[in-house]
Amino acid sequence: MRILGIDPGLQTTGFGVIDTDGPRLHYVASGTIKTREAALGDLPGRLKLIFDGVREVVGTYQPEQASVEIVFVNVNPQSTLLLGQARGAAIAGLLSTTASPAVSEYTALQMKKAVVGHGHAAKAQIRHMVMRLLDLPREPHNDAADALGLAICHAHAGHAMAQMAKATSLTRRTHAQIKGGRVY
Amino acid sequence: MRILGIDPGLQTTGFGVIDTDGPRLHYVASGTIKTREAALGDLPGRLKLIFDGVREVVGTYQPEQASVEIVFVNVNPQSTLLLGQARGAAIAGLLSTTASPAVSEYTALQMKKAVVGHGHAAKAQIRHMVMRLLDLPREPHNDAADALGLAICHAHAGHAMAQMAKATSLTRRTHAQIKGGRVY
Repeated sequence: MRILGIDPGLQTTGFGVIDTDGPRLHYVASGTIKTREAALGDLPGRLKLIFDGVREVVGTYQPEQASVEIVFVNVNPQSTLLLGQARGAAIAGLLSTTASPAVSEYTALQMKKAVVGHGHAAKAQIRHMVMRLLDLPREPHNDAADALGLAICHAHAGHAMAQMAKATSLTRRTHAQIKGGRVY
Repeated sequence: MRILGIDPGLQTTGFGVIDTDGPRLHYVASGTIKTREAALGDLPGRLKLIFDGVREVVGTYQPEQASVEIVFVNVNPQSTLLLGQARGAAIAGLLSTTASPAVSEYTALQMKKAVVGHGHAAKAQIRHMVMRLLDLPREPHNDAADALGLAICHAHAGHAMAQMAKATSLTRRTHAQIKGGRVY
């Protein structure tokens, strides 16, 4: 099973792809989607770049499952709103293709517990454990490490979560209920 | 020029389409995109329905410009986060097609000023003025009225905003900078 981890952010969205083979995990790819090409203050432009970037990653690696971080409510409400929009665009990117992966969601706490064993892990510990679990020659960068950690978290969550993901997958087959048109 | 107004929301996203002919405004269509078909708690499912719904509206009415409400920071940070994600998915839907409209953004205050003349207008006043300005036989429902109001607001904003929208349109031609891949 191929799993894509996504760590959404307005400036940088991390992605990490792994294959699972029973209990074994294999590294496939990782990286970041940066939005600095968009003009300063051009929020729709940034969201479009995130959407397109995630869509491209899905097209390239064809994951069957996606594991997306449940973002935090920030101290700054405006940042919360921006991060929410980035996450919305990223999930739209995941689900916009005909061969879309089933989407599961995990908190950073769940990811840290799965990767490091406890929820208070520092960034360096995550990088180190991701490197060890995926047998990498060196530590990945922070954004990619978190994304790979999310993919690992989903792989560990195993059967129960796979069943939930299937349910999500079914739901995605429903169509938007659009009411209206030329009503006058 | 055809303008699509979008009032994003996680449960209900309002849309309204108008044509402008110099200073004259013509009603084309309006309605809502509802997400209640998604299972309770299935946030990706809801975001997918918003994305698909907006995409379908763009495909049906082929607007050249889109006017999206800048959503509020809510008293409840969790609601802010959810609304942000709904807005992100809606904007991704607007920008996901090859013939995507240029996206402009307005606050509810700007919309109310454009439609009613002051920023403290009640819902009923917006419905009434949208009906009058578009020469409708009756008042539209709240969500559709706000969306039509956003389209009217963009029409009134006129030339200066059209120039800004063009700039946004150009920005959208940039590509996401994806760094990474199989880096190990």
